Amino acid sequence: MSFSEFPGPLFTDLYELTMAAGYFDRGLDETATFSLFVRDHPKRSYFVACGLQAVVDALTRFQFSDREIEWLTQTGLFKREFLAHLATLRFTGDVRAMAEGEIFFADEPVLEVSAPLIEAQLLETFLINTVGVASMLATKASRCVHAAAGRPLIDFSLRRTQGIHAGMTVARSSYIAGFASTSNVLAGKIWGIPTSGTMAHSFVTAFESETEAFEAYAELFPKAAVFLIDTYDTIAGAEKAAAVGKRMKQKGQALTGVRLDSGDMVALSRQVRSILDEAGLPEVKIFASSGFDEYELERLIAEGARIDAFGVGTRMGVSSDAPYLDMVYKMVRMGDRNVRKTSAGKVTLAGEKQVFRKMAEDRCFQVDIIGLREESMEDAVPLLLPAMENGRSVGPRPTLEQIRQRFADNFNRLDDKTKKLRNPEKYPVASSERLVELQNQC
Amino acid sequence: MSFSEFPGPLFTDLYELTMAAGYFDRGLDETATFSLFVRDHPKRSYFVACGLQAVVDALTRFQFSDREIEWLTQTGLFKREFLAHLATLRFTGDVRAMAEGEIFFADEPVLEVSAPLIEAQLLETFLINTVGVASMLATKASRCVHAAAGRPLIDFSLRRTQGIHAGMTVARSSYIAGFASTSNVLAGKIWGIPTSGTMAHSFVTAFESETEAFEAYAELFPKAAVFLIDTYDTIAGAEKAAAVGKRMKQKGQALTGVRLDSGDMVALSRQVRSILDEAGLPEVKIFASSGFDEYELERLIAEGARIDAFGVGTRMGVSSDAPYLDMVYKMVRMGDRNVRKTSAGKVTLAGEKQVFRKMAEDRCFQVDIIGLREESMEDAVPLLLPAMENGRSVGPRPTLEQIRQRFADNFNRLDDKTKKLRNPEKYPVASSERLVELQNQC
Repeated sequence: MSFSEFPGPLFTDLYELTMAAGYFDRGLDETATFSLFVRDHPKRSYFVACGLQAVVDALTRFQFSDREIEWLTQTGLFKREFLAHLATLRFTGDVRAMAEGEIFFADEPVLEVSAPLIEAQLLETFLINTVGVASMLATKASRCVHAAAGRPLIDFSLRRTQGIHAGMTVARSSYIAGFASTSNVLAGKIWGIPTSGTMAHSFVTAFESETEAFEAYAELFPKAAVFLIDTYDTIAGAEKAAAVGKRMKQKGQALTGVRLDSGDMVALSRQVRSILDEAGLPEVKIFASSGFDEYELERLIAEGARIDAFGVGTRMGVSSDAPYLDMVYKMVRMGDRNVRKTSAGKVTLAGEKQVFRKMAEDRCFQVDIIGLREESMEDAVPLLLPAMENGRSVGPRPTLEQIRQRFADNFNRLDDKTKKLRNPEKYPVASSERLVELQNQC
Repeated sequence: MSFSEFPGPLFTDLYELTMAAGYFDRGLDETATFSLFVRDHPKRSYFVACGLQAVVDALTRFQFSDREIEWLTQTGLFKREFLAHLATLRFTGDVRAMAEGEIFFADEPVLEVSAPLIEAQLLETFLINTVGVASMLATKASRCVHAAAGRPLIDFSLRRTQGIHAGMTVARSSYIAGFASTSNVLAGKIWGIPTSGTMAHSFVTAFESETEAFEAYAELFPKAAVFLIDTYDTIAGAEKAAAVGKRMKQKGQALTGVRLDSGDMVALSRQVRSILDEAGLPEVKIFASSGFDEYELERLIAEGARIDAFGVGTRMGVSSDAPYLDMVYKMVRMGDRNVRKTSAGKVTLAGEKQVFRKMAEDRCFQVDIIGLREESMEDAVPLLLPAMENGRSVGPRPTLEQIRQRFADNFNRLDDKTKKLRNPEKYPVASSERLVELQNQC
């Protein structure tokens, strides 16, 4: 499908190409290592790793087409020899990365590339974009799942995501984070994610009356009908829905639910629950959707809303309270030299790294230690694992269900204090002695 | 290119398909009209219309493939007759829309679709997504252009946009809004947008010394070199850049500029300007990039930063202070019946509409009047123009430069009070008497 295809190596910042030309001109072709990580984030206490499969798929196909080389030629910016080099370039390096569904923290590399300098440099823009967005959205979705405390969530964000590709990424990332389903049909087709949805206001307004709209829908979908009841007046809508629901029941059918989409959700959900119960329809569920995010979900549940499942849309789909991660891709080693930058407020850590996670006796996460790649630590799990070697995919390729399961298992092992939506505690991340020592040497 | 391709009719919410099945089952195939508009927005006083060309391109190709029909069949949700109908479905309706580069306001339809009900319904998700994101990003970019008060801006956002498609859309929308160039190479290839960029910190750290990195770059790009000077220490970096710049000048070359990417931009830019001037390099420009948005641009300029051009990245590229528009697509007419919904806080206006704009004698925008499509108003310009008729593209297809010019002309005619970044005045938008009358009738 087009959305998931690598858009090619020209999906990059111009400076990646001019720098590559500079390296080529000077014969700089040593192996370089770059670390991909998120700087400290004021609104997020943890992150969910996502996007690795898309990265591996893209890197195995990394190649300039003849047309792309022609276009670069006519810009007049580059020497013929350099363009001839690009024309034959493939990704031949190694990628070590945290598995999708892993939880990570600020400053921890989630992925490292070791490759000939030009190859490693040219990947920067694509890697940050792909891993950054998928991880940002999985992180946001996981906060919603946490706030919903077991109630099912449905991804309703497709119309407001920032573009087609983001719409697809949200569906996948939110499913990994524990959403029950998505409204996105294409995501259902491609990844087998369960899809949900029944009617919008336009369906109701297309009929002469609300009751007529409900009856038409029930006739066609007698086993999967959720009536949207707020087009004109929610209480009147609930009563009409209950009447149709009763008639369905008499025919041996079953109304699945009603949906609220506006107004005071706590009060309305309680009134609608009474109307349904009094009509002898206690099994009919109440769905709600209306600009929800984790904060609103937490509030509604705390205030006793009688809502069984939530459609979560726009604010989750664009991560509206934190619509970008400060994810960066920094050179940490060049040939046999460890390197770092020391720009004001943007210092990076030199050296090829590993992230070690120590667990408590109850299997909960206890502390992470950022160390050197060559270190080994007893009683700690190394999180950066080989994903590509010499340009080829290695290691397992988990299914979406396995990734979702991995996340659920991880999330259970992360302390509730770190998961708090507001003012969470900082999870402890330390540096190994050898990593600290290395910084003092370069 | 894949990013701009319509991802197909399954890029939609499931309920569009279930509703369509409901319409089909009841034989509802009258012509319906839907309006696309933005509800009132707390942080935006105007919007820039963008995305129409992508819409027209998609609608002319709207078609379910055999594989898509097969997949829908195996979901078990739909009747055979309905799927047979979908298999032959094409878009046969009319689209009336504001031209790209037009300025619009809350509640004004920016686009209306009139088509057989099922066709019109199935477009909802794609239309909101496409026009919404392109317009949101053009609007955000226009605020940056306004704040920069004539200084050139460069789109540096690609790595942090919410996905591949958004990255392409930002480049196009920000160019329409007046950005001078983009770092996005693919946008350069596809749309001919000027591209910019020279080096990142990794280039500097790839060499043994900063001076060596600058010299290598200058040798290769003697006419287009901008040195990034903050990798280690900005002032020391500026002195090294000036030294290399002087040597370039002696050889008849010319250093284009230096770039600051961290630290106190006002103080640093003044110090760096002095260093360059004292080195006899007053022509060398100072570029800056560092998490800028319109608010920061306004502040830097007000505080006397000596910056000649700005790279504007993440915050513009995700519209971080307002990462979504509350854009909706609502049925306003069905057959010969005008319709509206009256949900709490989400009332819509019935009827097919036109937006009329009146100009003052100096050609500035004076007032907009939302009226009925069939109305005509003297001394007012109708903004919704035919874009498609009977499923075919009609009307002009302006070039990107023409769209950019249209926006610039429009923006000049919008009052500064409406363009203020904080607490702007509300531009006057009225309803015609006939539109008001119609609401009372339905």
